[in-house]
Amino acid sequence: MSEIRQDPTTKEWVIMAPERRKRLDDTNLQLIREGKSSTVNACPFCPGNENLTPPEVLSFKGSGTNSWQVRVFPNKFPAVSPEGNNSKRIEHNGFLSMEGIGCHEVIVESPIHNKSLVFMTDAEIAMVLRAYRQRYRTIAQMPYIKSIIIFKNHGVKAGTSLGHPHSQLVATAVVPGHIRRQYEVAISYYDDNGRCLYSDLAARELETKTRIVLETDRFTVFHPFASHRPFETWIMPKTNHSSFIQTSEEDIPHLAQVLKTTLLKLHHCLDNPDYNLILDNPPVGQENSDFYQWHIRIIPRITESAGFEIGSGIFINTSLPEETALIMRGVHD
Amino acid sequence: MSEIRQDPTTKEWVIMAPERRKRLDDTNLQLIREGKSSTVNACPFCPGNENLTPPEVLSFKGSGTNSWQVRVFPNKFPAVSPEGNNSKRIEHNGFLSMEGIGCHEVIVESPIHNKSLVFMTDAEIAMVLRAYRQRYRTIAQMPYIKSIIIFKNHGVKAGTSLGHPHSQLVATAVVPGHIRRQYEVAISYYDDNGRCLYSDLAARELETKTRIVLETDRFTVFHPFASHRPFETWIMPKTNHSSFIQTSEEDIPHLAQVLKTTLLKLHHCLDNPDYNLILDNPPVGQENSDFYQWHIRIIPRITESAGFEIGSGIFINTSLPEETALIMRGVHD
Repeated sequence: MSEIRQDPTTKEWVIMAPERRKRLDDTNLQLIREGKSSTVNACPFCPGNENLTPPEVLSFKGSGTNSWQVRVFPNKFPAVSPEGNNSKRIEHNGFLSMEGIGCHEVIVESPIHNKSLVFMTDAEIAMVLRAYRQRYRTIAQMPYIKSIIIFKNHGVKAGTSLGHPHSQLVATAVVPGHIRRQYEVAISYYDDNGRCLYSDLAARELETKTRIVLETDRFTVFHPFASHRPFETWIMPKTNHSSFIQTSEEDIPHLAQVLKTTLLKLHHCLDNPDYNLILDNPPVGQENSDFYQWHIRIIPRITESAGFEIGSGIFINTSLPEETALIMRGVHD
Repeated sequence: MSEIRQDPTTKEWVIMAPERRKRLDDTNLQLIREGKSSTVNACPFCPGNENLTPPEVLSFKGSGTNSWQVRVFPNKFPAVSPEGNNSKRIEHNGFLSMEGIGCHEVIVESPIHNKSLVFMTDAEIAMVLRAYRQRYRTIAQMPYIKSIIIFKNHGVKAGTSLGHPHSQLVATAVVPGHIRRQYEVAISYYDDNGRCLYSDLAARELETKTRIVLETDRFTVFHPFASHRPFETWIMPKTNHSSFIQTSEEDIPHLAQVLKTTLLKLHHCLDNPDYNLILDNPPVGQENSDFYQWHIRIIPRITESAGFEIGSGIFINTSLPEETALIMRGVHD
């Protein structure tokens, strides 16, 4: 089992998970690194190899077939796991730590080994989003869970270790300091303005126009004013929903279409970039707040963060979001 | 001139510096990426090519030669620059920004194109450290400078764009939120305990022993309890000096020797890893505080941060510092 340690200089948590190193012994990673895809035979995420993963906790059938289309199971090399003690302890030398309890799941997005999210149909993407929503709902009910991060690493530069398209869910028994601070900023904005910061941000972008990538009747896609990295893209719902679990069944196909269009634009602009996709949500228990609004962040990994970013926490972005949004608007499927 | 924008969701600053993209057109980067070093003829940091850089602001002569050993000049593609307006402004749509004022300098560490810090003599490294100290002292006097980050990016994964060994100094007119928070944590610790957090951390490591890499009469080198990444290494002075500018002339050769030994150990353990080196200091103006202690952080870039780290701010470290410190202790020059 992993261990969660507090950095005494920042009060932020670090997950110590040496067991996860074992996943790197997987021959698949070597093949991905060499630019070859892993073979279907060796891939634990391909149909027929279900015995290579822990038992599934959720699966959705594909239309007109008997096999699964989306499959969710606990990560074989988890960063955090459900069994353990939920109390923090002070070690004899004054450091604070706790057992690495939580949930770490894998959401396989398609039975087809090389079918990236960007090439799936709207209906297939919708199924992935439903899996996100359902697992989020279930795990948020676990007594000690305080924060749930759903994310996707596409490509080696984005930190993936397996080529078969998948997302991950990590639920922790601590609220990450970063998320708590963002939430406090949102509350403070609400106190000062009586409105949700995130809804206001999307509204301001729609008014300003220059950073808009696309707009539908339900979603706004834009490159934020203070984008951390080139082509950082946000997808924000127009309905004020604090948490993704509030997303209605009616919204899901619309979101799938918007996500696909956005990924296609990035694919064409940046030639199939490595990217991270993050589903930003408030801390667990704050699902009905007026302060926050869930959104999707897509971060192409086309530049490296360097010593200045690590030392200061300040990003140096070499592209203006006004320029990149203009490029994105100009690209059509 | 660049622009500094505030991220309204975190209050952190982002430097928008599209001009810095031009440095990527440099053929040197292409050669580095292809695994070839740039030729001496084309390298703007090699002796004889001084006209390819802005005029120097400091240089130290090598012993027994007339040419420079260390040379400092403003970055040709600066993230921030000295001329401009030091006031923040609110744009019509409510976003906060300011002109990108500050200083961005390059410290070329050696006249020899391929001589990495790890292969320099103690005396040569000492000269680099003196250049750090002298430029820090000078720039800290500029009226609007609030924070100075000195750092080094070694290798492409660490974000370098030029192979010739060099460090950089970036001074900003804002205190990065990350540094302000760390400083507040240190003050709070001092309030509670009456002692410096950083001195206490080094003392606790010396008592615990398992995370110590090496110890001399003046410096402690260790892998911190909550290391963010594998083989993250801290060098901490035993004298309580809040800022690096207080480092005495007597300490410099000792630090050079400790830094060289540490880099050699990393070089042998990880086969010449890409790494970032950061000189952590308090905000400018806090040079005489009892709360903080300058230190050097070396972060090998052997793992990628992924969606979970970006989403949560929590690192997943796949190596225990107790294990990596043991490996480092076992390696000798």
